Amino acid sequence: MNTAADFSPTLLPRLMPDAMRDALRVRFAERFVTSMAVREQHGRDESPFDAPPPEAVVFCESTEDVAFAVTTAAEHRVPVIPYGAGSSLEGHLLAVQGGVSVDVSRMNRVLQLDADDLTVTVQAGVTRLQLNREIKDSGLFFPIDPGADATLGGMSATRASGTNAVRYGTMRENVLALTVVTASGEVIRTGTRARKSSAGYDLTRLMVGSEGTLGVITEVTLKLHPLPESVAAAICSFDDAAAAVDTVIAIIQMGVPIARCELMDANAVIAVNAHDKLGLAEKPMLLMEFHGSEASVAEQAATVQELAAGHGGTAFQWATTPEERTRLWTARHHAFLSGLQLRPGCRAVTTDTCVPISGLAQAVTQALAEAEAAGIPHFIVGHVGDGNFHVAYLIDPALPEERETAERLNRQLVQRAIAAGGTCTGEHGIGLHKQDFLVDETGTGAVAMMRQIKQALDPHNIMNPGKIFSL
Amino acid sequence: MNTAADFSPTLLPRLMPDAMRDALRVRFAERFVTSMAVREQHGRDESPFDAPPPEAVVFCESTEDVAFAVTTAAEHRVPVIPYGAGSSLEGHLLAVQGGVSVDVSRMNRVLQLDADDLTVTVQAGVTRLQLNREIKDSGLFFPIDPGADATLGGMSATRASGTNAVRYGTMRENVLALTVVTASGEVIRTGTRARKSSAGYDLTRLMVGSEGTLGVITEVTLKLHPLPESVAAAICSFDDAAAAVDTVIAIIQMGVPIARCELMDANAVIAVNAHDKLGLAEKPMLLMEFHGSEASVAEQAATVQELAAGHGGTAFQWATTPEERTRLWTARHHAFLSGLQLRPGCRAVTTDTCVPISGLAQAVTQALAEAEAAGIPHFIVGHVGDGNFHVAYLIDPALPEERETAERLNRQLVQRAIAAGGTCTGEHGIGLHKQDFLVDETGTGAVAMMRQIKQALDPHNIMNPGKIFSL
Repeated sequence: MNTAADFSPTLLPRLMPDAMRDALRVRFAERFVTSMAVREQHGRDESPFDAPPPEAVVFCESTEDVAFAVTTAAEHRVPVIPYGAGSSLEGHLLAVQGGVSVDVSRMNRVLQLDADDLTVTVQAGVTRLQLNREIKDSGLFFPIDPGADATLGGMSATRASGTNAVRYGTMRENVLALTVVTASGEVIRTGTRARKSSAGYDLTRLMVGSEGTLGVITEVTLKLHPLPESVAAAICSFDDAAAAVDTVIAIIQMGVPIARCELMDANAVIAVNAHDKLGLAEKPMLLMEFHGSEASVAEQAATVQELAAGHGGTAFQWATTPEERTRLWTARHHAFLSGLQLRPGCRAVTTDTCVPISGLAQAVTQALAEAEAAGIPHFIVGHVGDGNFHVAYLIDPALPEERETAERLNRQLVQRAIAAGGTCTGEHGIGLHKQDFLVDETGTGAVAMMRQIKQALDPHNIMNPGKIFSL
Repeated sequence: MNTAADFSPTLLPRLMPDAMRDALRVRFAERFVTSMAVREQHGRDESPFDAPPPEAVVFCESTEDVAFAVTTAAEHRVPVIPYGAGSSLEGHLLAVQGGVSVDVSRMNRVLQLDADDLTVTVQAGVTRLQLNREIKDSGLFFPIDPGADATLGGMSATRASGTNAVRYGTMRENVLALTVVTASGEVIRTGTRARKSSAGYDLTRLMVGSEGTLGVITEVTLKLHPLPESVAAAICSFDDAAAAVDTVIAIIQMGVPIARCELMDANAVIAVNAHDKLGLAEKPMLLMEFHGSEASVAEQAATVQELAAGHGGTAFQWATTPEERTRLWTARHHAFLSGLQLRPGCRAVTTDTCVPISGLAQAVTQALAEAEAAGIPHFIVGHVGDGNFHVAYLIDPALPEERETAERLNRQLVQRAIAAGGTCTGEHGIGLHKQDFLVDETGTGAVAMMRQIKQALDPHNIMNPGKIFSL
């Protein structure tokens, strides 16, 4: 949909000189790949943007591999683009200024599980599902779930969240420490395994959400959580999205420790029904999960049922067995792909605003009304317990005016979110496409400070250049 | 105890030129103060360190006042030292390189309570107790409680925590957004009121814990929490500190959502008994609080009682009325001052390590054994649910060898904490005295990165110079 011209760098692509190519080939041998198929696979993500692929891909197997690749790139002033699972939605992986893709997906070992401390250290290429499989006998789990089976390095780099964040927090709250290869190729360690610390600047939190622009994350130390004694999931349908969201607002304001609280609008339900044969009532729906002791889960559920009934919610349907729960959550995770099938051949322009909870009903209602008025097929899913929701506008890539309309709707949505005290991106990141929104949201002074940090830590602008800001 | 010579700056104190003095006097009139009494009061904190006082104090009443003071100081390259309540324990307020103290204590207005969003924005000089008084009718509260009635600006700057952090997190988790005056005197806003965001670098978390070295915090937007339906506090005594701590480890590993979980060793209990006439059993003691629905509190308490009994804990004593609870927590908050009276005329060298929870029993046991062996009066209090505890060594200021012994014990404690995956400071900050420990903990590479950030954001090193690192 976008073309390279959309993100034309002010600098020309910085081509890899032969000396760099040779150095990487000597070190990485067959793990240094320049075939077009592999380059193209690494130059795309789940975003609707296109750009030329990276000039090469190096498959790293250790922090030392990454340090070597970055040191070599630094010497030659060539961009470095970290690559995990390729599930970015904001163009983070696109080689808009050329460069080499540093693939960490083979760095997939769980390095150290400290079950007694509720911590684990993993290589950056471990995915969240893999982690939970590998630690399942420990009685612990890692809750952050952005939908995609992303790598923990990538989730750290984009400050990911998703379902479960309403109770367990985002990557911001769950990353304790990182190993990072800096722009000069040095290896540093940020943070410790202690639950809290006041030791100097919070480099961990600076790196979390930095989208590869300050360094390459190679190891991640995470908080784990005890598997709840009891888990229950339920769905509840409403006549309109506002009633569903008003229920959520009441849940949050009462302090119910709900673990997951997701909205699907009627279109999203129609999509997952078609895709997963679920037979759900095709009305706005909340999909919820409760964690705790049996008594606590029962109490939470009773409170929420009462609140839902007060907003016209129909009787809960419970998913009590793990299989039923998995079926529901799998459908939820398929919502994006299912939604795309509502309009075959379409591409999606996806919004990611997050607003203070009291403004959520209005934000969702206005977004729906505007999408209806514009006549563009769309659906909404959202982590509404956090005030975060996504509108997917399903546009025909052959019709530029549809894309323009979707972008206009997105702009309006973002401006309203910012005016309401919210953010242009709850969890996807700035990447290529939200750089103007970042300025609108936080002001030129704060963005200037971010640029000062970027320039100090990456003076030659080799770390994923063109992302967050077009330096 | 320490003298200025201990922190001799590599640069000479940077004296205020007459032009700066005149500019501040014109703007601030009687709020520009150079009397020795006021300067001395602003040049001390709760740390055992001494240094010459700042050259002047400006009492700011607005962000614009602070911006004016910093702009003027920047023009003349004179240090700026932010001042809130003066409760720092690490020498953050000491004018080790001269300069002007920027007192924000008169910036004490709660600016905007958004009860429906569970957020509040305050000026930096509002204290935590004041905030909770002012919002008490909203059904919400701000949980972070470092003991002292510190300002929320100061608590942000030191990444404070204290009791309650085990359930509600520290300032790291509870600050949503900040207004900051940068080193050039510009006013920026970091963050939004949304619960989560992936919008660019996390400047909020970079400022939280930066100890005044990157800017002056003038406004703070905080998360609030619903007042729990039910609160219960209990104490439980143990034959030795290890048994108490082993109970805590089990509580955390089981995921009990305990709200407060504090250790007082036998000496600390003796001290508060003497000071507050409490008649507690003079044995190691846990002081706990449970928040939640009535059923949840009862369930948590039953689980914890069982765990305590399994480690030889005596029967719980409950504090069920608010008055009894307040009496107990007041005693806990007095523990430091009460402890000082164990040795009249003493000063305290206080440790602040925080370790992964499984290492806590050994850390406490070794600390106690070493203090006993050294023959220095001491006591221990700790936020043990987080793995954080404080040993106070009570030394005779007239006996330098006692200070040397206390510092040696502290060094040993810190080195063991770091080896166990912990931190040299859970909540007090680096300040003047832990700069070497910071390097030991995080490595020269990470500290070099912190310095690069400092130099980029404060190129003339005017923001609280000499703290965190001696630039």
